[in-house]
Amino acid sequence: RALTIGLIPGDGIGKEVIPAGRRVLEALPASLGLKFDFIDLKAGWETFEQTGVALPEETVKTLESCNGGLFGAVSSPTTAVKGYSSPIVALRKRLSLYANVRPVKSVATAAKPIDMVIVRENTEDLYVKEEKTYDTPEGKVAEAIKRISQRASTNIATIAGEIALRRQKIRAAGSPSIHKGPLVTVTHKSNVLSQTDGLFRVSAREALSAEKFSSVKVEEQIVDSMVYKLFRQPEAYDVIVAPNLYGDILSDGAAALVGSLGLVPSANVGNSFAMGEPCHGSAPDIQGQGISNPIATIRSAALMLEFLDEEEAAAKIYAAVDANLEEGRLLTPDLGGNAKTEEVVADILRRL
Amino acid sequence: RALTIGLIPGDGIGKEVIPAGRRVLEALPASLGLKFDFIDLKAGWETFEQTGVALPEETVKTLESCNGGLFGAVSSPTTAVKGYSSPIVALRKRLSLYANVRPVKSVATAAKPIDMVIVRENTEDLYVKEEKTYDTPEGKVAEAIKRISQRASTNIATIAGEIALRRQKIRAAGSPSIHKGPLVTVTHKSNVLSQTDGLFRVSAREALSAEKFSSVKVEEQIVDSMVYKLFRQPEAYDVIVAPNLYGDILSDGAAALVGSLGLVPSANVGNSFAMGEPCHGSAPDIQGQGISNPIATIRSAALMLEFLDEEEAAAKIYAAVDANLEEGRLLTPDLGGNAKTEEVVADILRRL
Ligand SMILES: CC(C)[C@H](C(=O)O)[C@@H](O)C(=O)O
Ligand SMILES: CC(C)[C@H](C(=O)O)[C@@H](O)C(=O)O
Repeated sequence: RALTIGLIPGDGIGKEVIPAGRRVLEALPASLGLKFDFIDLKAGWETFEQTGVALPEETVKTLESCNGGLFGAVSSPTTAVKGYSSPIVALRKRLSLYANVRPVKSVATAAKPIDMVIVRENTEDLYVKEEKTYDTPEGKVAEAIKRISQRASTNIATIAGEIALRRQKIRAAGSPSIHKGPLVTVTHKSNVLSQTDGLFRVSAREALSAEKFSSVKVEEQIVDSMVYKLFRQPEAYDVIVAPNLYGDILSDGAAALVGSLGLVPSANVGNSFAMGEPCHGSAPDIQGQGISNPIATIRSAALMLEFLDEEEAAAKIYAAVDANLEEGRLLTPDLGGNAKTEEVVADILRRL
Repeated sequence: RALTIGLIPGDGIGKEVIPAGRRVLEALPASLGLKFDFIDLKAGWETFEQTGVALPEETVKTLESCNGGLFGAVSSPTTAVKGYSSPIVALRKRLSLYANVRPVKSVATAAKPIDMVIVRENTEDLYVKEEKTYDTPEGKVAEAIKRISQRASTNIATIAGEIALRRQKIRAAGSPSIHKGPLVTVTHKSNVLSQTDGLFRVSAREALSAEKFSSVKVEEQIVDSMVYKLFRQPEAYDVIVAPNLYGDILSDGAAALVGSLGLVPSANVGNSFAMGEPCHGSAPDIQGQGISNPIATIRSAALMLEFLDEEEAAAKIYAAVDANLEEGRLLTPDLGGNAKTEEVVADILRRL
């Protein structure tokens, strides 16, 4: 099978980790029968400075004809700059990548075992970015719309349920696990936002009450309490489903639990297209030193393959990364080691 | 000085912890010259079931004539109930309690020292609760307004700066500390919400650039990254200022770091009125067992006194609580002990 993959390194360490992801994909055993075509694409702050647009139309158009993509990270200006708007938020909407899937898993040797997936709605909520500002006698006032639809909420909860079932199947196939059965935790703040988060809650509940999810246990957490529990008993969670903004916050929180944002992958998933994206940012402070952690991106490449139904290839990559982490000899500085990006990549390639 | 304090136990364990707060206030040494009058007031789910309103007008009116208040916790229905709306959210608005101050501090013997205050804007953001729902061919859609004003943002940042200075003064007076100088961390998501969170950011920056804050270091964190850093290096933070919803989420996160929500107090602060409120909820699961942790409420009573300019009385209460925790002999189950509420209260009273 031939797969065309768009590569959007973006800014900062995005340019160091995306090539690492590419090399791992290229090094997959020929026996898997995968052939990759890579297309380099532009987006981000540097692109904006050069061309006046942060997300060139060509990048969007090209991705529309790809099977998948790998997105690095982009820098944002610290103050609002006219005409600049986050390309990743725009891409998620333009390509209808309605689910953002973020698995957070500790290594087998960790003191506190963690194995959860955060399934984040990826197109609406406050990310519709409909804002306005007006003057009043007491100064400026700004408003933003938080929009929640029954359709997107139903979709994302359905995906969360499917992921819970898939994870359970893998566990049943003998993979060691800290979880007994499939569990989906619906996160919201409907005690304050009874209509918007209330709609998310009710739609998710309804979607998850479908016959095919009868083996899935469904529970709820108010978002503030969810953050509290995430830190107090992370081992209790399997699949967490949340509206866009809460999902954004929860996934950074979960990343802190496994030691580094540099370990946590994500996939932006649409119908027959998936784009891998490390959860970390462009980290200008460490750019150019060759010490950025390539693992979030390498795992994002695997996650992308999972959603393109190449589970065997994905499993190979996960296993190579896990072996590197479990040995713990070649780790980048964010994990307390002193290995270079290059050494970590070489070690993972060797284990493929 | 005579202080009239309204007591609103609310539901669940609110009824167990508010009496504890009252007893501690009554037991303050006579040498402080404080005389308390307590008025019992109603609000919450039980009140709603009995009377059809969750926040009786009489409660609001009486509080308006009080110097301070102590609010316990209220239960919310799990599905939207017509006519019911959270009384604490309403009270904050009705009484113009524009700041929610949440100090989170580990005991001196903790492995990871933490000493921060989360200063949460308390009247606007998504908590304006302006929502609507409409039908579309693809199902229901709901919208909520997130409103941020220059005025409230300026106010809350100013309070955060003042708290940072006050904390620094106490430290300079010889109190041991993990912090070198006063620091305020402004938290927002202006990379996505450039107008609303952008206005919060700019207003806060401007307020904190005032001459009187020249010794205060000001920095920024995007909210998702803030949650990550909160867990990775909590010792780095002194005062964190945030819009309402982020402040809600961050304070539960910070509570997880010190071991239990049962330890974390808050004060809802307005002009010459302050209402203490434990950060925990009504916890119906443990209600009636006599094991709820009274410390969050006792500390909230002290925090209320601080904002009523009774710092000496507040310091006495804090010291008694710290002594109880540092000895670690009488702890409620949320802290891993098996003491009853009553035993903890007795121990703290003894130490006053
Ligand atoms: C960079 C930013 C717009 C983005 C988001 O908020 O979605 C990031 O935090 C993420 O989690 O992918
Ligand atoms: C009960 C709820 C409305 C409240 C809030 O969201 O403010 C609570 O979580 C808090 O933090 O005081």
